[in-house]
Amino acid sequence: MNILILGAAGMVGRRLTKKLIADGALGGTAINRITTFDVFPSEIHSDTIRIEDIAGDIADPTTIESLIADRPDVIFHLAAIVSGEAEADFDKGYRINLDGTRLLFETIRQQKDYRPRVVFTSSIAVFGAPFEDKISDTFLSAPMTSYGTQKAIGELLLNDYSRRGFFDGIGIRLPTIVVRPGKPNKAASGFFSGIIREPLAGLEAILPVDDSVRHWLASPDAAVGFLLHAATMDLAPVGPRRCLNMPGICLSVGEMIEGLRAVAGDEVVARIKRQPDETIRTIVSGWAEDFDPARAIELGFTADADFQSIVRAHIRDTQAGKKA
Amino acid sequence: MNILILGAAGMVGRRLTKKLIADGALGGTAINRITTFDVFPSEIHSDTIRIEDIAGDIADPTTIESLIADRPDVIFHLAAIVSGEAEADFDKGYRINLDGTRLLFETIRQQKDYRPRVVFTSSIAVFGAPFEDKISDTFLSAPMTSYGTQKAIGELLLNDYSRRGFFDGIGIRLPTIVVRPGKPNKAASGFFSGIIREPLAGLEAILPVDDSVRHWLASPDAAVGFLLHAATMDLAPVGPRRCLNMPGICLSVGEMIEGLRAVAGDEVVARIKRQPDETIRTIVSGWAEDFDPARAIELGFTADADFQSIVRAHIRDTQAGKKA
Repeated sequence: MNILILGAAGMVGRRLTKKLIADGALGGTAINRITTFDVFPSEIHSDTIRIEDIAGDIADPTTIESLIADRPDVIFHLAAIVSGEAEADFDKGYRINLDGTRLLFETIRQQKDYRPRVVFTSSIAVFGAPFEDKISDTFLSAPMTSYGTQKAIGELLLNDYSRRGFFDGIGIRLPTIVVRPGKPNKAASGFFSGIIREPLAGLEAILPVDDSVRHWLASPDAAVGFLLHAATMDLAPVGPRRCLNMPGICLSVGEMIEGLRAVAGDEVVARIKRQPDETIRTIVSGWAEDFDPARAIELGFTADADFQSIVRAHIRDTQAGKKA
Repeated sequence: MNILILGAAGMVGRRLTKKLIADGALGGTAINRITTFDVFPSEIHSDTIRIEDIAGDIADPTTIESLIADRPDVIFHLAAIVSGEAEADFDKGYRINLDGTRLLFETIRQQKDYRPRVVFTSSIAVFGAPFEDKISDTFLSAPMTSYGTQKAIGELLLNDYSRRGFFDGIGIRLPTIVVRPGKPNKAASGFFSGIIREPLAGLEAILPVDDSVRHWLASPDAAVGFLLHAATMDLAPVGPRRCLNMPGICLSVGEMIEGLRAVAGDEVVARIKRQPDETIRTIVSGWAEDFDPARAIELGFTADADFQSIVRAHIRDTQAGKKA
């Protein structure tokens, strides 16, 4: 089996790549080769599987043609300009998130007798206020950001290209991922990870919103689980609406902080500084809080058990990282 | 006031152009100039208003730049490859319906200090089964055709470009228009007009679906009314979800036939031949039947009174056409 990962140098992409290498197989079939693609090299190596590590521009036709000419069996499309940057740089967001995605789909279509599985990471940013109390599987896509618009368009294209038989696509709308390791990215949702990650590392963290803010969360491990399941599941029962709300857990910021306290103690929690930021408060107030992801659960996707286990997994990962 | 009509040679475009010429003003402001644009000349003339009649390709950047360089105050975007053709010719549908629309929006954005009203004709084809009994204003866009996909993407772009302040856009999802004059087009919905138009003209008409099929209909006059209202209404109360289900009337094919009988008699109705066509039956079975267009009604859009008045208006138009 030949696998292509677009956006492989990002947090979820790296974790997915490492998991595939560790497993050595996907859906019971041995993996012969993984191509990791991003704007810079992923630099993930393997002794057991051939890794092609390619850096380039996803909106460049020649680049995408060469990636698709290898006819990967499964394509994970995780490449994206994140929400904050897509809002700040209109052209860049549309070029990567819309043109890049469409170019990928179109390049696949141009190949004869080729129908790969395409797993597209979408986002709950396709939804905009006013919301339902718990967003159902038939809630409309009415995004309030350019990023959400680009993801919603990608979903429409994925459904149409799949319906026409050009590939076998599935879109997964990821919750906000916590705890992101490493440095903050430009996403407005960054503080959801920051208030856990920074205090655990002995650093101060800024909380720009109220403790009462509720949000829909999943761990990096859960995200990788969604991707693997999407890549291997039977798509026949999914039907024509191929983009699914992934199961997460709904928590307030206050509940997250109490979860951190239960795992790591008062001293760690004391490193969180409340510093309201009107811009971030406004952006976050336009986000969905809670979901009823019935279809995804029925189709076998599984959420994290609880927030404390997310915090513990982050501590375990960080310590593993230090040891390595 | 300077008005640009894209898709001006189509049925609704021609009728809109003639109405604007007859009115001489839009929203109380005198019209100085109307530019009619389509793949072929509209050949509509006026003694009172300057008409620029331009034929070209809406997906050609130079063409669109020259149209937008004139900075029209109101742009009606009606240009589209219809559903049947967009399904048959994948590339053409995407090129005109998606690339053409995006090019228009993007060309407007590139102009400095320019924020026209953009009226985009979308379609109830953005909806796909399974439906609600009466489709509400918050029903999701899950199209089952490439045409519907392209329109749904146009709507997302219109919302985002409007939210960012690049223009003041509004999208109107037209019901199926009956009675279309002239010859059938490639739309799978053509028979809804055909079963009225052909018998009234003394010709046989083919009915490819069951009498029980229900659909959502509006007259050409109602469609022009929607466009004029969309061009002049206050958009502040519309909010960020700028694409609205237009009010129509929900009728079964049997009820349409009885309406025709009431106006024109048994002899005319006898010219309808039932000739089931599985392809058309399948396409039509995937269409929405009934709506609750509460937002549009609240915002001042008005539906046809009843089907008999639609038939009578068609007879009046046809006779006026014969006299001319």
